[in-house]
Amino acid sequence: MSARLSVDTVLAGLDGIRSDLEAFYRDLHAHPELGHQETRTAARAAERLRAYGYDVSDRIGGTGVVGVLSNGDGPCVLFRADMDALPIEERTGLPYASTAVDGDGRPVMHACGHDVHVTALLGAARLMAQARAAWKGTHIALFQPAEESGEGARAMIADGLADRIPKPDVCLAQHVLPYPAGQVLTRPGPALSATDNYRITVHGRSAHGSSPDRGVDPVVMASMLVVRLQTVVSREVSPLTPVVLTVGSIHSGANPNNIPETAEIQLNVRTYQEEVRQRVKDAIVRIAHAECAASGAPQPPDIDHFGTLPPTINDEETTRRVATSFSAFFGERARELGIQTASEDFSEIPKALGVPFTYWGFGGTDPALYARAAAKGTIATDVPTNHNAAFAPVVQPTLDTGVQAAVVSALAYLGNGAR
Amino acid sequence: MSARLSVDTVLAGLDGIRSDLEAFYRDLHAHPELGHQETRTAARAAERLRAYGYDVSDRIGGTGVVGVLSNGDGPCVLFRADMDALPIEERTGLPYASTAVDGDGRPVMHACGHDVHVTALLGAARLMAQARAAWKGTHIALFQPAEESGEGARAMIADGLADRIPKPDVCLAQHVLPYPAGQVLTRPGPALSATDNYRITVHGRSAHGSSPDRGVDPVVMASMLVVRLQTVVSREVSPLTPVVLTVGSIHSGANPNNIPETAEIQLNVRTYQEEVRQRVKDAIVRIAHAECAASGAPQPPDIDHFGTLPPTINDEETTRRVATSFSAFFGERARELGIQTASEDFSEIPKALGVPFTYWGFGGTDPALYARAAAKGTIATDVPTNHNAAFAPVVQPTLDTGVQAAVVSALAYLGNGAR
Amino acid sequence: MSARLSVDTVLAGLDGIRSDLEAFYRDLHAHPELGHQETRTAARAAERLRAYGYDVSDRIGGTGVVGVLSNGDGPCVLFRADMDALPIEERTGLPYASTAVDGDGRPVMHACGHDVHVTALLGAARLMAQARAAWKGTHIALFQPAEESGEGARAMIADGLADRIPKPDVCLAQHVLPYPAGQVLTRPGPALSATDNYRITVHGRSAHGSSPDRGVDPVVMASMLVVRLQTVVSREVSPLTPVVLTVGSIHSGANPNNIPETAEIQLNVRTYQEEVRQRVKDAIVRIAHAECAASGAPQPPDIDHFGTLPPTINDEETTRRVATSFSAFFGERARELGIQTASEDFSEIPKALGVPFTYWGFGGTDPALYARAAAKGTIATDVPTNHNAAFAPVVQPTLDTGVQAAVVSALAYLGNGAR
Amino acid sequence: MSARLSVDTVLAGLDGIRSDLEAFYRDLHAHPELGHQETRTAARAAERLRAYGYDVSDRIGGTGVVGVLSNGDGPCVLFRADMDALPIEERTGLPYASTAVDGDGRPVMHACGHDVHVTALLGAARLMAQARAAWKGTHIALFQPAEESGEGARAMIADGLADRIPKPDVCLAQHVLPYPAGQVLTRPGPALSATDNYRITVHGRSAHGSSPDRGVDPVVMASMLVVRLQTVVSREVSPLTPVVLTVGSIHSGANPNNIPETAEIQLNVRTYQEEVRQRVKDAIVRIAHAECAASGAPQPPDIDHFGTLPPTINDEETTRRVATSFSAFFGERARELGIQTASEDFSEIPKALGVPFTYWGFGGTDPALYARAAAKGTIATDVPTNHNAAFAPVVQPTLDTGVQAAVVSALAYLGNGAR
Repeated sequence: MSARLSVDTVLAGLDGIRSDLEAFYRDLHAHPELGHQETRTAARAAERLRAYGYDVSDRIGGTGVVGVLSNGDGPCVLFRADMDALPIEERTGLPYASTAVDGDGRPVMHACGHDVHVTALLGAARLMAQARAAWKGTHIALFQPAEESGEGARAMIADGLADRIPKPDVCLAQHVLPYPAGQVLTRPGPALSATDNYRITVHGRSAHGSSPDRGVDPVVMASMLVVRLQTVVSREVSPLTPVVLTVGSIHSGANPNNIPETAEIQLNVRTYQEEVRQRVKDAIVRIAHAECAASGAPQPPDIDHFGTLPPTINDEETTRRVATSFSAFFGERARELGIQTASEDFSEIPKALGVPFTYWGFGGTDPALYARAAAKGTIATDVPTNHNAAFAPVVQPTLDTGVQAAVVSALAYLGNGAR
Repeated sequence: MSARLSVDTVLAGLDGIRSDLEAFYRDLHAHPELGHQETRTAARAAERLRAYGYDVSDRIGGTGVVGVLSNGDGPCVLFRADMDALPIEERTGLPYASTAVDGDGRPVMHACGHDVHVTALLGAARLMAQARAAWKGTHIALFQPAEESGEGARAMIADGLADRIPKPDVCLAQHVLPYPAGQVLTRPGPALSATDNYRITVHGRSAHGSSPDRGVDPVVMASMLVVRLQTVVSREVSPLTPVVLTVGSIHSGANPNNIPETAEIQLNVRTYQEEVRQRVKDAIVRIAHAECAASGAPQPPDIDHFGTLPPTINDEETTRRVATSFSAFFGERARELGIQTASEDFSEIPKALGVPFTYWGFGGTDPALYARAAAKGTIATDVPTNHNAAFAPVVQPTLDTGVQAAVVSALAYLGNGAR
Repeated sequence: MSARLSVDTVLAGLDGIRSDLEAFYRDLHAHPELGHQETRTAARAAERLRAYGYDVSDRIGGTGVVGVLSNGDGPCVLFRADMDALPIEERTGLPYASTAVDGDGRPVMHACGHDVHVTALLGAARLMAQARAAWKGTHIALFQPAEESGEGARAMIADGLADRIPKPDVCLAQHVLPYPAGQVLTRPGPALSATDNYRITVHGRSAHGSSPDRGVDPVVMASMLVVRLQTVVSREVSPLTPVVLTVGSIHSGANPNNIPETAEIQLNVRTYQEEVRQRVKDAIVRIAHAECAASGAPQPPDIDHFGTLPPTINDEETTRRVATSFSAFFGERARELGIQTASEDFSEIPKALGVPFTYWGFGGTDPALYARAAAKGTIATDVPTNHNAAFAPVVQPTLDTGVQAAVVSALAYLGNGAR
Repeated sequence: MSARLSVDTVLAGLDGIRSDLEAFYRDLHAHPELGHQETRTAARAAERLRAYGYDVSDRIGGTGVVGVLSNGDGPCVLFRADMDALPIEERTGLPYASTAVDGDGRPVMHACGHDVHVTALLGAARLMAQARAAWKGTHIALFQPAEESGEGARAMIADGLADRIPKPDVCLAQHVLPYPAGQVLTRPGPALSATDNYRITVHGRSAHGSSPDRGVDPVVMASMLVVRLQTVVSREVSPLTPVVLTVGSIHSGANPNNIPETAEIQLNVRTYQEEVRQRVKDAIVRIAHAECAASGAPQPPDIDHFGTLPPTINDEETTRRVATSFSAFFGERARELGIQTASEDFSEIPKALGVPFTYWGFGGTDPALYARAAAKGTIATDVPTNHNAAFAPVVQPTLDTGVQAAVVSALAYLGNGAR
């Protein structure tokens, strides 16, 4: 059986499960759960996987769930969906909008579309299970907690993920994005940025504001540091290398008339290559120390490096294989994805397992709305993006596309050797 | 009667009131009251003034008290003492240390020595009243609220002070300082700085940290502003003109990864001449607007000018007259005061009344402690200064000196024409 | 006749002209001429074109030469080569190295490879003329002066180029680059940067160094301007958009002790999109004015915008057509070109004529040398790049490749309709 | 004989020598000589001193001259006058204006009034010699070369000055200034600033302007250094301590498009206390190193410290003694001198000899012109100051006052013990 025939056979079941999937999605959207608290979501995913015949392990890295469907000799494909929602108050006006709150009473919302990811992967799993004759190998459906905080993937790995599943040959993941629903968008090589956060505390010496010579002014020191850090992007990295360095906060002092003891800045760095990431880190450390030295600071700065996420650098060969399958199936709806300034922890899983991976986007925006905004040049303002309180993927063709992409990509590996 | 004989005659009564004054002082120190809340202090001052024969008006500008003792034709001298304490928890270890709290339960302490000022002025008033034959003219004892916030003097003026007292020929005031007890220190011309506080809010445009081109970064804007403001002192005022410009606080943003909407800095400026004060203000306003323009800010900065105090520029002739009297009485203990970077609102009173004034310091530190610290070069660290929780003037000779200075200075005007 | 057959037919003549071309190239390399002085080069090009049967116009925009070969109905392709050399003293050690000097005795060298471009285009013209039966349409060979100064293309246009030639359907150009000889490298869309130079003079007010308050310090003003300009790249353009802003010079003052009257900086900007180019220009102007305002400058800055070159943004469709032909002919040797930070004036010609264009690179480095350097990671230091005194393309397969690329690309348009 | 009688006796001779002195002065003004070239001036001074009976040594430190008049037991007073002129083209319009040029044909002018100093000291020497009975002790008249370059005093010391003269008890010097002629102005303590010049070369790494990541940008480094140096004055010295730090020049690069290899700044610092001078020097060195470290410079900065002059800190006791004599003789014309931002090398001599000193100013401006300018508030623009091409002291009462001040100050030491 050819890969194409395989795809057609598996996806033939989509019509039969569509209304169930849509209902499942609406329910999930109405019941979002924050990272590490995805108990209801995880339970539903595990329950369904078991019903489909997957061999399920749960409570991996907290609320993580993995289902394995062994279907004879052949490649092993791992597909990952993330489950967590965000502490945002939903303003979509949807009939199934979330009114959920967390333990502290804060509103919670699926503003990043992870509910779409979960639904699409469950749909694909069901179809794969229904049509075992159409493919050969092993399909792993992985439901990850806490992507937003960047901890979930590492938590599952630390909890022994590698020992609980067969070693995959490839890992796949997808994300709904503010592109027209129906499109799938792939990108070989650097696709998502690495994120590094730094908290730098500079130490001065407090004094009355009228006696600057008796103190060391941390307000001036931190300000010079902010100014100097601009040169990392403007002078220290190649103009052809995308890098962002944003100082998102600066805090020092309480009143106009006292020189404070310390100042703190927090900054976020986004890069796309490990060597650039390291070069920027080195520059930040070097500059922070030098600015404190320039001020005659009584001690060097404290530099706290936190909230790191790796760059998502899609394997070229894997991406080409998936993209070729997408072009064959989706035709013109298969596009190239531009490089993204967002970050993801998905790649932690394949890197821990030592296997290649690719990660792609698929559209969730009403195509008509998108086309109108594009015509007016107002996409940035008219199309709600992820993390926005109005982010509301249209149910269809978003869900269908997500299921199809999950099936087509898996069968790019599992479909060829089928009976 | 010569001025000198007059001084000797009035001060002859000091031995008889010393122990009463010391007890009064210790009680006052143990019962500090914050600005505009000096009801107990004001009541005691008014009660005593009335007992001495002064014609008393109270509740001027809130808790202000004025006593007038008319004693025949002659000059009229107004002497001012300030009454308020500070929200500081006392750590002097004195037997009469304050345990008082304000209405919100915050500790209160006479950490600036206003209790010494009140006691010394009441002592002088009692001596002046006891020895009316030794001088001629009018003595006004004024007890002012809320010096620390810079509002008290203006409050008394706004409440009609000028209409409630005879117009003085001169206004006098003194402040206990961390010099050896027993010393009095005068300074003609600029003596205390003007203070101006500014709160500057710069307006950016928030954006995700990964999209700086979609925002206007207020962290960079405020940092550049802090850096640029350094040039006011380094380039825009004469090197021979003392100016301090301290940015005491800077605040913007909450996390590393978002470009905030605004940033706020607070700064304090100290100057000694009105034209310099204005030039610095103009420079601050000019630079703040220009830095916002350089960043392409969506709106100009908000600049809030608050907490102003005028420079205290002692009248040359008045200061010379008082200083000459001090030299005659105190001998070597009469010194020259260096220019001070602190500020005061006393001068608002004589300026409102249109009369000359002088303001001097007198020591409150144990001379032996001071000498040891001076020998070691550790005055800055070993001698507690005003506003420090350990500020504890030695009772004597501090009180005696304060009373003597108040009498000697008044008699520099009132003593010559006496019978 | 198919395009492929057409290519084979035309290029069949290459073996017969190779040794002549190589001799021509070595002679040209030994006789470089600076921009606008390419009289010998232009004369030889014109002479050869005429011999091949082209209809030649010369002295266009100074030394420019155009040859037109009309060969029946069909598309019209213009191919441009640049002729000028650089004021660099050759250090290649080649037997045919230049010892030429210009009128002022300065050494001159073909350090940018324009001698390769001229030779390759003449070779292609000869082959096209020899095999007219293999293609149909019009072939224009254009030899442009003064590319290095960015003036030559505009000079030819200003001199009526459009009226002297048939309107082409497409314009093509190629450049030898430090890639392995034998490779051709194309890039759709932005390929070369725009260049803009700015000279900014800020006006202060001179004063004795001891009286900064009497002056306005242009050294501080220019320094703040340099610092502020860093934020254009770090904050005002998208991290995904390559932009370079280099302040290459700063000059003010003559001795340590006088505040000068003015300061001057010169800066170079490289961008790849017109809107980014304009945004950066706006930012520079805005910041320069604001920094002068911040300093209280007596007058706004003088901003001289000079030395501009447009971005080279290859037409997507044209590039794809040429790239497809290259892949068919060169196979693996047809590559994708990375975006270049260099600039070119070629695109002025097709823009003036209103036609699409593409511009590609081809290798000139000894493949063995390149491979060794690549293996050691020392390409940057071991492979001499354009404008380096040691830049020495290997004669073959560089010339063959240049001729082949010029023929193949032209026949992508002219070959299909042939008899 | 009292000091006062002594003064009257010595100065009784002034009427008799006035016209000769005025002629000498006009001749000297018309024949200015640059530093180390004062051969004519020195010869005339030596000739006159010998004629008055002084024991003369010449060619000390080049053109320096010293005359010693021993007149019995008593104190020894050294009085110094500087002889050199400036490379300025005179524009006074005076009948005796200089038309002199130096060896290179550059115009030379006595624009700093050293001709007045020489004349006044010779006049005083003549009077002292004529009236030996009126004083007792030793009078030393010293004529110093090369004050303007700050080298002359050190040159005389290095040439063995201390061994050629009796050790003085005190050293005195005076300078004509743009105050009303007839006034003498003294200042105890800090009077003239120290000067320190620094040349700082920062080392970057050159690169093409389009590849900042391959270089280290010295333009940015030097600009940040200029900006950072502003904080020395604004934050590191007491607001009550006058300090000037002016970066008078900055130079780097030649064209907009190359990152240069180095940048150089020159700066001038003026201070009034040795400890402040050292603190500022330490701060400059610290900041320069730190800014280079912040940029990742390949090597630390080169810091050349040159052109230093010490602060002139007048001995308190000496100044009081001289000022008291001036008050007695000049009455209201004896004033207090404000602190000056100029520098002098006179103090090198008494410091080398280990003796106290004082230095004062005396007026040279037409009193009527000065009064008009003062009334209009235009002194800064209407009264030509030293080093201005229009600086033209009125001959009288300038010369008389200079002679009188030189005699009165010397007799403050030598007059009391007279017969």
